[in-house]
Amino acid sequence: MSIPTTPPSGFRDFLPDACSLRAHAVETISRVYRSYGFSQIATSSVEELSVLTGKGGGENEKLIFKILKRGEKLEQALGSSELADLGLRFDLTLPLARFYSRHQSALPHPFKAFHIGPVWRAERAQKGRYREFYQCDVDIIGSDGNQCEIEVLSAAYSALIAMGVSAPTVVLNDRTLLFAQLAAAQVPEDKRQAVCILLDKLDKVDRGQILGELDALVGSASARSIETSLMTDQADAERLTAAAPAAMKNLLEILKRLQDLHGTDRFALSPSLVRGFDYYTGPVFEFRHPKLSGSLGGGGRYDRLTEKFGGPSVPACGASIGFERLMLLLEESGEGPKTAGPDVCVTVFSEELRGPTLALAARLRQAGLNVDVYPGTGKFKAQFKYADSRRARAALVLGPEEAAAGKIKTKNLQNGEERLEALEELISRLKAS
Amino acid sequence: MSIPTTPPSGFRDFLPDACSLRAHAVETISRVYRSYGFSQIATSSVEELSVLTGKGGGENEKLIFKILKRGEKLEQALGSSELADLGLRFDLTLPLARFYSRHQSALPHPFKAFHIGPVWRAERAQKGRYREFYQCDVDIIGSDGNQCEIEVLSAAYSALIAMGVSAPTVVLNDRTLLFAQLAAAQVPEDKRQAVCILLDKLDKVDRGQILGELDALVGSASARSIETSLMTDQADAERLTAAAPAAMKNLLEILKRLQDLHGTDRFALSPSLVRGFDYYTGPVFEFRHPKLSGSLGGGGRYDRLTEKFGGPSVPACGASIGFERLMLLLEESGEGPKTAGPDVCVTVFSEELRGPTLALAARLRQAGLNVDVYPGTGKFKAQFKYADSRRARAALVLGPEEAAAGKIKTKNLQNGEERLEALEELISRLKAS
Repeated sequence: MSIPTTPPSGFRDFLPDACSLRAHAVETISRVYRSYGFSQIATSSVEELSVLTGKGGGENEKLIFKILKRGEKLEQALGSSELADLGLRFDLTLPLARFYSRHQSALPHPFKAFHIGPVWRAERAQKGRYREFYQCDVDIIGSDGNQCEIEVLSAAYSALIAMGVSAPTVVLNDRTLLFAQLAAAQVPEDKRQAVCILLDKLDKVDRGQILGELDALVGSASARSIETSLMTDQADAERLTAAAPAAMKNLLEILKRLQDLHGTDRFALSPSLVRGFDYYTGPVFEFRHPKLSGSLGGGGRYDRLTEKFGGPSVPACGASIGFERLMLLLEESGEGPKTAGPDVCVTVFSEELRGPTLALAARLRQAGLNVDVYPGTGKFKAQFKYADSRRARAALVLGPEEAAAGKIKTKNLQNGEERLEALEELISRLKAS
Repeated sequence: MSIPTTPPSGFRDFLPDACSLRAHAVETISRVYRSYGFSQIATSSVEELSVLTGKGGGENEKLIFKILKRGEKLEQALGSSELADLGLRFDLTLPLARFYSRHQSALPHPFKAFHIGPVWRAERAQKGRYREFYQCDVDIIGSDGNQCEIEVLSAAYSALIAMGVSAPTVVLNDRTLLFAQLAAAQVPEDKRQAVCILLDKLDKVDRGQILGELDALVGSASARSIETSLMTDQADAERLTAAAPAAMKNLLEILKRLQDLHGTDRFALSPSLVRGFDYYTGPVFEFRHPKLSGSLGGGGRYDRLTEKFGGPSVPACGASIGFERLMLLLEESGEGPKTAGPDVCVTVFSEELRGPTLALAARLRQAGLNVDVYPGTGKFKAQFKYADSRRARAALVLGPEEAAAGKIKTKNLQNGEERLEALEELISRLKAS
């Protein structure tokens, strides 16, 4: 019988290097978000199907992994179409809305939260598209001032920098600006959503093809007007101000604050930016990187989050780092932190010297070093091979001669150099380098 | 229409305090395991049902959350009993076995791994028993020496200490010792498993009741012998050595190494320790704490891990920290780290001063402080109330007077004390305290 040893299609295992990069990213992003005063929350991976559906999740609702009813409930359901009662969450936004609807009286007001974890979608498996992947959201709920946009953008931008991403940029737009210009281009209201969907494809689809489709959709005069005003990354400030003065003033203010904080060349207006989701109600933004087609994440203001749960409407603004895109960028470009093995591997010379060897390892750990003791009783050759495979900086030997001299022998695994050192000497050298 | 805002029964949301304790535990345990030279791995949350079942998971196999087939496959399956194809993992051991079977050629040998993440079981919901909970495993695969037991026990023990657990203890036993004494007590082989199940209940069920059941199961002579040799935490070294000399020598060696490393009073033999799972093949151990009935985790040697996937047998030894039990202990006993708000909340005096205020916050963050800027435009009273609700140490004011004087006003939120300080003065005071 053949038993599969691969995860199901679209699911992944993570070997040590990949896993350590992911853990490092979660820790780093969390640390930066905490430094901005955001609190971490977590929600259950599993939700009632009635929570996951009918909330405007669009296509994603079709991709829910549904969980079969159990026991008696399953027996009763057999033959009906109600075979499932629970589902795996497909994003972190809907769970946040449920969470906030339930717990708001116990939370600070406004509430600044971050939320990192896996979500699941039954997508057709293809390269770079997974059925289980991480999302990484940061949100401010309950405040409508543009300090929220500044704060979530600043925090997410700083998190990318802390991850070692060398040159992220941010483009901003506002839904109001977009719609005002569609109005100026004489696009009837019932066709604006369709135009936005086309514009959203600008970075993936050929420009000529999009122009052709616009022509067919709204006529050539409107299409030409859209081309000039919206199919460009060059913002015409005068035209935009004329189209929607308040939204433009707001966006320029956000832009200026961010440029003051993080540098003028990293943030820019982009009249063509749509950001797919139809729940955004004001400013929208997207993180980009020259080595990555598509985005590194994005977000915006979505002022009607909790309405879906029957509560009063609450203003909200959030940013999401594309966690899997970030991993891809760091792995493919070689940017970001280097994953490393332990500082040293300690070999075990003999059973008699195991006690002093374990004590040596304990002392090195106390000094803050990562120390691997060879977990076998093999020959020295196997022990050095193991130390190599762990990519340790050095292998340590504590044999009878070393023990008698009160010293430790180290072998540098990069250049083969050997030294005989006293413990304190060894520690300060390892900690210094 | 009523839309639920609670998670499904047995599932949980985590508010900021609980969530930050959990994240701190994951980071701390990971750091300690890395300092022992273990590498982190991750496996998919979802497995093929054929992987999850028929592998000796016992009762847990009945508790699998099964995922409904999708699309065409579902249509074909309707009316049959094969409605599901995938399931949520119910532990981390089976996924580790699959992972190792698949990836071993790419891994160091022996392989030292840790694995932290959620698992799911469709248990009947009750206090302290959840349907989604974390497991936290550390294992050495591919080595049969007792240095593995010493290393995983040392690492897990150090992780508990690093989490602030004040007085954890470890009890150890060996399956071979246990079975040798059952043989000495004339318990027939086919009844040994049943006796073990009874002994495993010693910390939950009345002793008299267990004795009664033993009497009925194996007769009074054997029952009395079991009572003397096994229903005690007082190890009789002579009797144990006589029963299984090699296993006893091995266990005493493990015990001595651990006592040398971590203190004599923290580790002890316990002849009655069973540890439920029937896959253990040698030494077993359990973490305990005086404030907790039941265990804080445990583990042992299980030398037949990968056989289930058709591979050759590989020796393995692992420890598991009871993550949810640890959270319970830390929350209920007040042991462990204190969760805290940001270091300071920065109030926003006016729109004109927002720029300098954001720059101040950025400077404090650079200095390594956690800084919350009030995310609204409210009155000062609301801003101070917010700072209180965040449990910040101090609220900062940068008004026109402060700005003119080149200083910052701080209000200590514990005692109401106010100060006017220069930026560098403020930073060094906050970093020192």
